[in-house]
Amino acid sequence: MDTVNPKSRVDRRSLILDAAERCFARSGFHQASMSDICQAANMSAGNLYRYFPSKEAIIAGITERHRAQVATDFDAVEKAPSFFEGLAMLARQHMSDCSEDEINLSVEIIAESRRSPAIAKLFQDLGDDVKARLVALLASAAQRGEIDPALDFETAASMLMMLADGISLRRVADRNFDVDRALPFVFKMVESLLGRSTATSRTEKAIS
Amino acid sequence: MDTVNPKSRVDRRSLILDAAERCFARSGFHQASMSDICQAANMSAGNLYRYFPSKEAIIAGITERHRAQVATDFDAVEKAPSFFEGLAMLARQHMSDCSEDEINLSVEIIAESRRSPAIAKLFQDLGDDVKARLVALLASAAQRGEIDPALDFETAASMLMMLADGISLRRVADRNFDVDRALPFVFKMVESLLGRSTATSRTEKAIS
Repeated sequence: MDTVNPKSRVDRRSLILDAAERCFARSGFHQASMSDICQAANMSAGNLYRYFPSKEAIIAGITERHRAQVATDFDAVEKAPSFFEGLAMLARQHMSDCSEDEINLSVEIIAESRRSPAIAKLFQDLGDDVKARLVALLASAAQRGEIDPALDFETAASMLMMLADGISLRRVADRNFDVDRALPFVFKMVESLLGRSTATSRTEKAIS
Repeated sequence: MDTVNPKSRVDRRSLILDAAERCFARSGFHQASMSDICQAANMSAGNLYRYFPSKEAIIAGITERHRAQVATDFDAVEKAPSFFEGLAMLARQHMSDCSEDEINLSVEIIAESRRSPAIAKLFQDLGDDVKARLVALLASAAQRGEIDPALDFETAASMLMMLADGISLRRVADRNFDVDRALPFVFKMVESLLGRSTATSRTEKAIS
């Protein structure tokens, strides 16, 4: 019989996922054992297994939580005064707020998704979610004349994800990489990608 | 006494590295054992250990070999008729010729470099090499008026590496990612990044 109330259950799940994230990021998915995670979560094995029967279940939990966070982030972005301001918010969330542990964890999950079809599916679903939200943002930005309406939204969304991945990877792969120096270059590439100037000049034409 | 002649020694090292690359890409760096690598290389453990005393030594060998390949690739690019043709050559080498196994291997090495300072150093040195070659290419392209001479070459080189990493990651992270559809977008971003049109218009101005 489960004597833990639902609110406390959510808290405990969240506590375990936090502990697991730290363990996976530091030791790697295979080297971090369930008993390492118990220790980091300050919890008995019996208790932990009640919430997550396996490391795969923990990774699924981490990915689901990340997916919920992504949804919250995009909800905020959709309320931004303009598409480019919203995009800058997303970029800041993704790049500056993202700790080295989180990037390590992503690299771990990607490496593992190459071997585990279940994790590959979770990761693909998460990516599909992000892409669909980006496509929707691009489509409404195009309708408002902020970007080129003739754009291939699907590929443009992939390119934005590619830039985000690429920056995360540079941050961990090159200790001399300077995000602040890089961001203006990234924004310039994004504007060219999305045809901001084309759209603006069209808008100006329409007005004049 | 080593009875193996130098040429054959190089061949055997290369054979072991090939086998190890396949094993690491498929099973991961930690799950692939030295005995898996022996089997894949069709070689006894005693023989393999004569060439590489540890998995770390094998990773060092793989990274060194990759570094030599990068040098060969850049030598060819430096002989290209124009900077942008050279860059397209590099992009093709990096993206289209790169197998899924090679991308998996890179993800493995990045994940491992987060935990092993020795591998992090090898990986950083390789990246520094690539960046220095890119900076040199950019500087001579600027001198020939092919790109904006006021460019921050260092950051621009990082951005090119970021795009290359980002595309590799998209290829493994999203089974619907279409490289051929993406490449024109990437080239557009690169031209905007490097100020191709600015340089061209300056050249045109100088001529007229």
